Amino acid sequence: MEIGKNNWAIAEGYIPKESHGKFPELESHETVCMLNAGDSPANVEIMIYFSDREPLGPFHEVVEARRTKHLRFNSLEIPKGKDFASTIKSDVPIVVQHTRLDSRQAENALMTTIAYAQN
Amino acid sequence: MEIGKNNWAIAEGYIPKESHGKFPELESHETVCMLNAGDSPANVEIMIYFSDREPLGPFHEVVEARRTKHLRFNSLEIPKGKDFASTIKSDVPIVVQHTRLDSRQAENALMTTIAYAQN
Amino acid sequence: MEIGKNNWAIAEGYIPKESHGKFPELESHETVCMLNAGDSPANVEIMIYFSDREPLGPFHEVVEARRTKHLRFNSLEIPKGKDFASTIKSDVPIVVQHTRLDSRQAENALMTTIAYAQN
Amino acid sequence: MEIGKNNWAIAEGYIPKESHGKFPELESHETVCMLNAGDSPANVEIMIYFSDREPLGPFHEVVEARRTKHLRFNSLEIPKGKDFASTIKSDVPIVVQHTRLDSRQAENALMTTIAYAQN
Repeated sequence: MEIGKNNWAIAEGYIPKESHGKFPELESHETVCMLNAGDSPANVEIMIYFSDREPLGPFHEVVEARRTKHLRFNSLEIPKGKDFASTIKSDVPIVVQHTRLDSRQAENALMTTIAYAQN
Repeated sequence: MEIGKNNWAIAEGYIPKESHGKFPELESHETVCMLNAGDSPANVEIMIYFSDREPLGPFHEVVEARRTKHLRFNSLEIPKGKDFASTIKSDVPIVVQHTRLDSRQAENALMTTIAYAQN
Repeated sequence: MEIGKNNWAIAEGYIPKESHGKFPELESHETVCMLNAGDSPANVEIMIYFSDREPLGPFHEVVEARRTKHLRFNSLEIPKGKDFASTIKSDVPIVVQHTRLDSRQAENALMTTIAYAQN
Repeated sequence: MEIGKNNWAIAEGYIPKESHGKFPELESHETVCMLNAGDSPANVEIMIYFSDREPLGPFHEVVEARRTKHLRFNSLEIPKGKDFASTIKSDVPIVVQHTRLDSRQAENALMTTIAYAQN
């Protein structure tokens, strides 16, 4: 089943500096979840945008056919405690969802949204 | 009133292993909420995608006419503590929303989003 | 400025039975936020769907021109602790967003999403 | 890469009066995150809508080319503890996401959604 679009954007992004709780599950993180429900691998390019400097990237990722990849922005070279945003470009249709777990305080907080999609 | 689309996707999915609080309301869970506002039953097929193995399913569900069904992914055979994603395919238009309650820590956290829709 | 659509749906709905904290701000609640940015009043009809019984409604609401209305589902006759869903139908374009504050435990949790839109 | 639309709306808005935790990161806030991934600056006009009075604005903001701007509604003249909503109008395509951090109680809560888009 092929579902999704080729271009996605996430306007929010911020990796808190602090964390509480068990590592790595409860480390503060920002995740881009990508689903490739189709039968060809997805070649993905991620660009990171900042408020005060030129964009970083593209970072190259592959999401294999019929697989999901939940990529923590923490694994890219993004400074902590800085506002950022991202675009995700794929050569085949994918679906992108954005999630943050914030464990700066003793109890974790969560948020999620399907990203903005465009062909 | 008929509203919605036939194909939906949720790129995020993760059922935490731990829970705190009253069972079953405050058990950590991941839910797919389906609304069938039309006058015919919706025959739904759910596929589950992973990062490192072939997809599971389809799981068959029926959402009766003029009814909502909030299905916990916990009720399907999905391993806990593993990243997953899902597609939801219906023979009549439905609306799909994704919610997680995470009670790994003493206080629960929530997140939700309307899923990605496609005809 | 006219923005929005006429038909909206929210597939998730659940008003927790318990609350902690200052009333009414921190009472557990489920809200439908409606924005009418246009110059004519919006006549709105809300239907409530359940998992095991016929829908309730329509409930009639007016959102005046150039106004927002954040309506707590708690103010309608919806039983607590039961899954529900809703459709929102307006005679002029509006924008609808769904929010829950859950204060069942000592610390409150939040979630939000733009609802599903259709003309 | 040009991505996004020119008109956006956020139906939810509420700046809690109280906060806990380190200032300014953990001050209760409501944010509009804007991404301008294109090569021309975005001239943005923000209108704020209330439940019981005429709208406020437009507030003028510029999001430079290839930059993101995470603007706290707290920085505009919006009364705390009051329901509001907003529209965001740009002369070039942008992507808009809405986030709230609520630290009224000891542990913070988060929510986010991509805003409603229209050309």
